[in-house]
Amino acid sequence: MAQDSAVRPRALPRVLFVALAPIAAWFLLRPLLEPAPSVPALYAAVGFSIFAFLGSLYLVPALGPTFIRANLRGRDLLKTYDDPIPESLGLVCASIYIVCLILFTPYAFSESIKTYDESSMRGREGLVVDEFPHHQLAIYLSSILSLLMATMLGFLDDVFDIRWRHKLPIPIIASIPLLIVYYSERGSTDIVVPIPLRWIFGTLLHLGPLYYLYMSLLSTFCTNSINILAGINGSEVSQAIVIAVSVILNDLLFLPWPVGFRIPLPLHVTDGLKVGGAWSAGMAYGSRVLVERHLLSLYFMLPLLGVCLGFLYHNWYPARAFPGDTLCYVTGMAFAVVGIQAHYSKTLLLFFLPQIFNFVLSCPQLFGLVPCPRHRVPRFDSEIHLLHPSRAEFKEKRPSALSSAILRVLAALGLVELAFDEQTGAIASTTNLTILNVFLLRLGPMREDSLTRVLISTQVCGSLVAFFVRYGLAGLVYDGNRR
Amino acid sequence: MAQDSAVRPRALPRVLFVALAPIAAWFLLRPLLEPAPSVPALYAAVGFSIFAFLGSLYLVPALGPTFIRANLRGRDLLKTYDDPIPESLGLVCASIYIVCLILFTPYAFSESIKTYDESSMRGREGLVVDEFPHHQLAIYLSSILSLLMATMLGFLDDVFDIRWRHKLPIPIIASIPLLIVYYSERGSTDIVVPIPLRWIFGTLLHLGPLYYLYMSLLSTFCTNSINILAGINGSEVSQAIVIAVSVILNDLLFLPWPVGFRIPLPLHVTDGLKVGGAWSAGMAYGSRVLVERHLLSLYFMLPLLGVCLGFLYHNWYPARAFPGDTLCYVTGMAFAVVGIQAHYSKTLLLFFLPQIFNFVLSCPQLFGLVPCPRHRVPRFDSEIHLLHPSRAEFKEKRPSALSSAILRVLAALGLVELAFDEQTGAIASTTNLTILNVFLLRLGPMREDSLTRVLISTQVCGSLVAFFVRYGLAGLVYDGNRR
Repeated sequence: MAQDSAVRPRALPRVLFVALAPIAAWFLLRPLLEPAPSVPALYAAVGFSIFAFLGSLYLVPALGPTFIRANLRGRDLLKTYDDPIPESLGLVCASIYIVCLILFTPYAFSESIKTYDESSMRGREGLVVDEFPHHQLAIYLSSILSLLMATMLGFLDDVFDIRWRHKLPIPIIASIPLLIVYYSERGSTDIVVPIPLRWIFGTLLHLGPLYYLYMSLLSTFCTNSINILAGINGSEVSQAIVIAVSVILNDLLFLPWPVGFRIPLPLHVTDGLKVGGAWSAGMAYGSRVLVERHLLSLYFMLPLLGVCLGFLYHNWYPARAFPGDTLCYVTGMAFAVVGIQAHYSKTLLLFFLPQIFNFVLSCPQLFGLVPCPRHRVPRFDSEIHLLHPSRAEFKEKRPSALSSAILRVLAALGLVELAFDEQTGAIASTTNLTILNVFLLRLGPMREDSLTRVLISTQVCGSLVAFFVRYGLAGLVYDGNRR
Repeated sequence: MAQDSAVRPRALPRVLFVALAPIAAWFLLRPLLEPAPSVPALYAAVGFSIFAFLGSLYLVPALGPTFIRANLRGRDLLKTYDDPIPESLGLVCASIYIVCLILFTPYAFSESIKTYDESSMRGREGLVVDEFPHHQLAIYLSSILSLLMATMLGFLDDVFDIRWRHKLPIPIIASIPLLIVYYSERGSTDIVVPIPLRWIFGTLLHLGPLYYLYMSLLSTFCTNSINILAGINGSEVSQAIVIAVSVILNDLLFLPWPVGFRIPLPLHVTDGLKVGGAWSAGMAYGSRVLVERHLLSLYFMLPLLGVCLGFLYHNWYPARAFPGDTLCYVTGMAFAVVGIQAHYSKTLLLFFLPQIFNFVLSCPQLFGLVPCPRHRVPRFDSEIHLLHPSRAEFKEKRPSALSSAILRVLAALGLVELAFDEQTGAIASTTNLTILNVFLLRLGPMREDSLTRVLISTQVCGSLVAFFVRYGLAGLVYDGNRR
């Protein structure tokens, strides 16, 4: 009975829907009323995000049984019970997200549509005709296209369990529309060289085609890096939430705020972060292009945050629904999309510090230097209900010299714990090379939800570091104000 | 043993691949070589179509077992054996199709990219800068987006068996990107009134928002009408092939052919169909916009024809693979996309004559006037291996007056066969209201492959009538030359 209730959908207060739905509806209606607000589409984006939140909150438990019937289910490896949990519910989140983005499209161009309608009339009167921003539309459509491809790929992965070698190139194909649009808007392929390195490379480094390679690898990295930092309840979706909040905060800095303020940074060489100020121009300092880019980013991030928050409610320990690869792919692709389309891919990567750490740490296992078991999730001790680091064993073949060297360095850094063969003295096993096992190694065995909390805290700290590097340190190695 | 071989994948001659792959590669390379052909992207489209054909020809049997393992399988209702046949392989076709379209995108804009590169240089020299055709790019991207949504919907339908009331609105959402792009290019929402009706409506009828409703319903109709004319081996994909060939032939009429010719029509009031002629301008008569639209349509139709032909090889009686709803949705959406984007939706509907007939005939069952069993496919007599019309029976409730009247009219037209209750004289059962049952009723019981052949012949005749109406009769009720 206790077990039965453990996998029954979490109760949902009806009052939440009754309270939030009218607020969301007001945000959708407000841009249509006179006098129009200064950024009407942003209101609509907030409205859609609330609907996205409500959508995933109520649809995920409602559709769970359908997923179980369609054989999309799994058991929770880190629990004492065996009940099937619906799997791949990231598909519901992704569908809600994409439908919201598509329904939002007319809002994104509402201002253009209005002036466009008027200008078509003025055209007949022989006055200047404004062009519809086809180029913005192309950016918008290519982004949705990439997101939909990521969703499709993730879901196929859930249904068919595609081998990772086969699925690796697909985010690259999914990024082609992004790259063509980037090209068509004459996106810059130069990078500014940090001051200390200018004596080698000069001020501007022209990367050309390499820059496109970098962007398509960015989408591959973003989609896969969240996917490999997974395995415990709430881990995938909480990463997405922290990164999305960080991106949103970063975007907000560039909006034209009516007030100016200054965020002091704990660094004596810069005078802190100035937002708004003399012309109420935010950090965009009056650049319309910058404001538009960060608005675009907000339009994509707000509904993503909405669906992820709604899903977290059901995915939190003990999980009532699993995200599947679909959620990891669609969130990762969403980050890649805004990084590329709003031109802040370097800042974006700073928000991925834990993922980069986890990826680099995983490389010896991903590239076959160290045996890689099917699951690298921590080991669950069902007696004391605590998680312990899981281990990979050298069974058939002994570790090569390179593997041993790498593992010894990692052990010296305290990132793995090795066990040695008593007779030969060779490495017999190691803890799996993931950030989750590192936490358990350094902080001791803990409950699953505590481990998720540690992961979230790490991600938040990573974002704080990212902001500090981006707005503090960058001023030291770059001249002028880089955006 | 005989049964085992019946469901084993059909043998594929290796020579086909060896012969066609280099030809396809040459078509892909040719546009890159100097001197460039007059329409370089068309070469690439032919090349991708051959690859699409080879792709579905070789991948469908290769992935069959994977689909069976993932529980995507069904048994053939009209056969004596029970072996599982892989289902939803339209997903493979759709994926190949969409990947081809995405890889083709750079070719579609190769000319623009070239002049764009040059013009960016000229810009520095102070000369006129050509704009990148963002608007064409938006058309292209929105089309792929709609196709991908249709694929997704079809596959979800196969996995979850969505109720038709729930899935009905989704093609409408999938068509929003198409509609916004149509709006952004100031697509016309006027329709020209045929001469005999002008005394009521005037020459031009301004439909406005109704025209957008018409377009979104078009996508719903195209995706669903192929889906309801299904059930026998090869029926779905052969419909798609005949319609695609018809659309391609229609597009070819508008290309700038180096020779001029005249197709005489069996009609005394028009002087036949003139193609090419004085300025080698095809039926576009030198309109660059018309040529571009029909080229766009070709770029989408050629690879579709490729995947469908490859798939037909495995789907032909006795079928080794089933298309699933995925194939019906993606092909239907492809037709809707070209009809809307290349502005010939009325001509397109003419190619759907058998589907329109089948849809109208099905309405009494779709809208609940006549009982609608789960499957309306013809009944298989396993003794003589022939198909007979299947029947729907009035079990619980007696037919209403309206139902009886409709069925009696259909019976008088020879489209259904009724059976009466001996005691009350009321209608007890009717043959199911599909075009397949009508064929069996009029032509007598036949083998499954003969029925598919009858369907194909009907579709071909429908297209011939369509061409006659479009280029013969249209001249009678419209003035000038309507495209």
